[in-house]
Amino acid sequence: MVFQPSGRRGKVAEGRTLLEASRELGVDIDSICGGRQSCGKCKVRVEEGRFEKLNISSRTSHLSAWELSENEFIDVNLKAEGYRLACAARLKGDVLVFVPEESRAGKQVIRKGPGEVAIELNPAVKIYHVELPRPSLEDPLGDFERLTRELGEIHGLKNMVIDYFVLLDLPDILRKGEWKVAAAVWNDREIIWVRPASVEEWWGLAVDVGTTTVAAYLCSLKTGRVHAIESMMNPQVTYGEDVMSRITYAMTHPRTGLKEMNRFIIEGLNDLIFQAAKTGGIDQEEIVDMTLVGNTTMHHLLLRIDPQYIGSAPFTPALHRAMDLKARDLGLKINRSAYVHILPIEAGFVGADNVGVLICGEPYRKDEIHLIIDVGTNGELVLGNKERLVSASCATGPALEGAQITFGMRASPGAIERVKIDPETLEVNYKVIGQESWSQNSKPGKTETKGICGSGILDVLGELYRTGIVDKTGAFNRDLDIPRLRTNSEGTPEFVIAWSQETSIGRNIVVTQHDIRQIQLAKAAIYAGAKLMMRHLGIDRVDRVLIAGAFGSYIDREEALTIGMLPDIPIERIVSVGNAAGDGARIALLNREKREEAGWIARQVEYMELTTNEAFQDEFVAALHIPHARDKFPHLKGIVPDEILNQ
Amino acid sequence: MVFQPSGRRGKVAEGRTLLEASRELGVDIDSICGGRQSCGKCKVRVEEGRFEKLNISSRTSHLSAWELSENEFIDVNLKAEGYRLACAARLKGDVLVFVPEESRAGKQVIRKGPGEVAIELNPAVKIYHVELPRPSLEDPLGDFERLTRELGEIHGLKNMVIDYFVLLDLPDILRKGEWKVAAAVWNDREIIWVRPASVEEWWGLAVDVGTTTVAAYLCSLKTGRVHAIESMMNPQVTYGEDVMSRITYAMTHPRTGLKEMNRFIIEGLNDLIFQAAKTGGIDQEEIVDMTLVGNTTMHHLLLRIDPQYIGSAPFTPALHRAMDLKARDLGLKINRSAYVHILPIEAGFVGADNVGVLICGEPYRKDEIHLIIDVGTNGELVLGNKERLVSASCATGPALEGAQITFGMRASPGAIERVKIDPETLEVNYKVIGQESWSQNSKPGKTETKGICGSGILDVLGELYRTGIVDKTGAFNRDLDIPRLRTNSEGTPEFVIAWSQETSIGRNIVVTQHDIRQIQLAKAAIYAGAKLMMRHLGIDRVDRVLIAGAFGSYIDREEALTIGMLPDIPIERIVSVGNAAGDGARIALLNREKREEAGWIARQVEYMELTTNEAFQDEFVAALHIPHARDKFPHLKGIVPDEILNQ
Repeated sequence: MVFQPSGRRGKVAEGRTLLEASRELGVDIDSICGGRQSCGKCKVRVEEGRFEKLNISSRTSHLSAWELSENEFIDVNLKAEGYRLACAARLKGDVLVFVPEESRAGKQVIRKGPGEVAIELNPAVKIYHVELPRPSLEDPLGDFERLTRELGEIHGLKNMVIDYFVLLDLPDILRKGEWKVAAAVWNDREIIWVRPASVEEWWGLAVDVGTTTVAAYLCSLKTGRVHAIESMMNPQVTYGEDVMSRITYAMTHPRTGLKEMNRFIIEGLNDLIFQAAKTGGIDQEEIVDMTLVGNTTMHHLLLRIDPQYIGSAPFTPALHRAMDLKARDLGLKINRSAYVHILPIEAGFVGADNVGVLICGEPYRKDEIHLIIDVGTNGELVLGNKERLVSASCATGPALEGAQITFGMRASPGAIERVKIDPETLEVNYKVIGQESWSQNSKPGKTETKGICGSGILDVLGELYRTGIVDKTGAFNRDLDIPRLRTNSEGTPEFVIAWSQETSIGRNIVVTQHDIRQIQLAKAAIYAGAKLMMRHLGIDRVDRVLIAGAFGSYIDREEALTIGMLPDIPIERIVSVGNAAGDGARIALLNREKREEAGWIARQVEYMELTTNEAFQDEFVAALHIPHARDKFPHLKGIVPDEILNQ
Repeated sequence: MVFQPSGRRGKVAEGRTLLEASRELGVDIDSICGGRQSCGKCKVRVEEGRFEKLNISSRTSHLSAWELSENEFIDVNLKAEGYRLACAARLKGDVLVFVPEESRAGKQVIRKGPGEVAIELNPAVKIYHVELPRPSLEDPLGDFERLTRELGEIHGLKNMVIDYFVLLDLPDILRKGEWKVAAAVWNDREIIWVRPASVEEWWGLAVDVGTTTVAAYLCSLKTGRVHAIESMMNPQVTYGEDVMSRITYAMTHPRTGLKEMNRFIIEGLNDLIFQAAKTGGIDQEEIVDMTLVGNTTMHHLLLRIDPQYIGSAPFTPALHRAMDLKARDLGLKINRSAYVHILPIEAGFVGADNVGVLICGEPYRKDEIHLIIDVGTNGELVLGNKERLVSASCATGPALEGAQITFGMRASPGAIERVKIDPETLEVNYKVIGQESWSQNSKPGKTETKGICGSGILDVLGELYRTGIVDKTGAFNRDLDIPRLRTNSEGTPEFVIAWSQETSIGRNIVVTQHDIRQIQLAKAAIYAGAKLMMRHLGIDRVDRVLIAGAFGSYIDREEALTIGMLPDIPIERIVSVGNAAGDGARIALLNREKREEAGWIARQVEYMELTTNEAFQDEFVAALHIPHARDKFPHLKGIVPDEILNQ
């Protein structure tokens, strides 16, 4: 079979779905639900059978019969054109499949940038230069003991051990270096690298394994500076965009699912390592330390631990504590004897990424009450100060990452990331990732627009509300008579953000009533979670809100306040801290005491289970309105028109 | 090509020697020198080329030309029969090769039996049974922390870690066992095995890797009892019988030699593990601990460390200290997460086997001055008591193991292990391994005699001297007129131990003047080493002599005294302690405090380098005579005839 436009081809066993075939042949087809025919993102057009022009009926005869579930995502016209869901259609013969642009899982380009965090340099791996006395009949001490004697006498290191594979090369390296060598020592304890020459600079890699995005920071362990940043889409995305899809995939494919997903992320990390070394102009062997953060599911999949028990109550992880594993045991291609430090996790849905956020933001050192929101497919919340901290996880759904939205997409080129609506003309101006200019300053058709990503989605709701196009319940104002506000074939209203001629997909990009509801659900979950945690701590205000996440780098604080995602707080007390999880990984890489601090704080934070909390449902429903209680938002005066606030 | 009588056949690349071909096809051909054409043990008879009867000239045309070095071991008659050295003849075409019985490396059958040593049971790996409370929303603690919480509360274990591969299975095992499990904990610190059921008994393997013999003791870690004993020839013997041959092989085959020899011993150990488990009726997974001893060269080869630097002054090993390695990192097939404890070594030629001997004999706890002699291809000596201990190594050569002796062989069936000579008739009576009766009580031709092993060799010299057949210089008494004392084709005398009709090789088994010299060199090395060590400690007598080694189990104390191998000591103060190195491995397996003791004593023992000691040469030369100073052996009165003592 052949996939177009990539041209990838190969033989695939009969009975496989087109989505499975695409994985085998290395073609990226978008999938949010992980092949469960529930997201509709994997639409493809079947072009030919046996590479001949055929009529529709014979074309489909090379595939399994149409399934009812496909009706939901593919209307009669598209069906006539040969559209199928790649996860529904199974191979029965040769086919040529075209993957339309909107179904392609594009390369993620938004890098989680390293935040401006001051880190005291105290890496776990340090380099020591020593010159050893040559062995003689009077002093025939063994090579290892000769090296450690010197490390002890000159550098005060005691009770050293050595990695087995380093030992194998030690005799030759000592003699090659004529007894002048550089030794890399891990945690003052284990020799993990010996070079027959001086080592001027050595390297570590901090990695944040997100559900969607994986970001790696190559740092000098000598100076602490970031030398290269690489990011990629988590290759597991093809198994589903959220953690539950992946847990489900592992459960429904008991022998293979976990192994496959593990292999995907390990291979992906090895690609990142290769790229980071290449960009940095160094050898992979020179990377002698690595830290990893990720949510609990990513953590388990990365370690090849079955995640099924974190998927259902009581959501028990396999372990909480940090691990120091040999990179080789995980299959990671940095220095063969180097360790990987995996940060501890707090609970089934509050993972090592959140621990990274904590050691980055350090609320446990502060007097001010902090609310830290890490926005991702799963929202993770931490509330408190140095006296007490609680954490919780709320299922925001993937809407804020652009999924389960009609034209939602990840933050990749072609995605609308900013939206403004003129309150007078109700005309839309938007900005697309990959384009310099906003749409009103661009030539039509030059924006390459494909869809809307999370920050754009959030803007849309804020703007629609601010301009009165939707009311506080989130319902469209049907009295407005403007071309952009239309009624679709199902009789429900939708709002056109971009006309088809402005896009590269040839269709109007709209926001539907359903989409609005998804955003309301997401923001309400965050608000309700924060509210419940505040009640749990007996407080009615917070002093500071930190918004973290790749999404957070781009969030518009005003819009977030407008739609009521955050508790009442002056706008200047909201801080966007970027990829704090990644920064936490970097901090743990550069300062080993922070690893201990992470272990300690992971145990200290009190975990609140919201999913089983009855009060959460009440708060959640109350938070669906926009803004759910206007009298609590005096600061919105001037941002939101009075007539709307007084609605 | 085909080897007879085994019938092994296969295709072998042109240019390979017959010895190399034999290894490839799994045929055991004896080789002491490791293929350097210097021992003559690998004689084979070339029968046919291309499986047709051919005359001699065409027969040899399938092999490389005759080499000068072969003249030394193959006389004209044997040459005419088609004999070649397997290490000299290289393949040029198809051949059929017959391996004569005397050239076959027979299966070693002498087991190093476990000595009668009382060991306090305190294994490194202990089993704990626990029942965990099920996780709930009120107590959603992770699986690992749930297990360690219980191990801490019930058994007082703190700061536990878990092997990565055990962690991978932990969630399933806990649930399979319905939260009642057995956990194997290594050194009170690391969980290395978790079973979803109770574990009644668990196992460890103690292994002594000798240059020639490898012995393994499968022990219950619950009761300490030895459950199975397996032994085998060290498969590296094919690369040479002594440590220097193997070091040389590694040096002359820089890319492959070390790897090959390492693979041979690891595969050999895996065979032993398989056999021990089979004999013991247990699963290899149930072997959860292992200890290893061996001389420094065996230690390095086992660990895949280049041994070249222990082969020349200043004889520096890669390391001294004990190592705890994961069995999987060495490729050993016991429980995947189990450790292997490799005992420390003292010096380049005093290895972990000697440390095993030390923790077995415990001279460092004694008031009496102990002399411990571990007889092997290399003799290792320890002298002292609780105040001070010195160790040394002396190159005894392989004579005492039956090598470099005309009819020498390893202690396997067909080897003469005991010899008595009647002082009146000068007739010989001998005992053969594998036969119940002594030769004088056996039917001629029924003894299956093939050669003489170490203990037989030692007896021969004692008996020849005691009966006046050789004098104190080791020279044959040419005045004697008996059929057994003959002059060979080179004009030198030799003594017939067994007539050809009594043997299975159809040749007279003789002891030559050269053989006598080899034994004298070996016994003199031991005596001179002991003498020098005594002088070093300023003592002129020892209180106790312990003779260790597989050889030692069989040594005749009287003969050892007769030939002057030991310093002056009453015969009742000589103790044969059997395979003390293996016992040491077993002690370390069963008692972890003994491992620390081993580490401590290995550092405490003072090492004397004899090879570079000038006084050693003088002592050595003086010790060549038998007995070298008769006035020092008053106790020999009655054992050795007066006329000989007064010679």
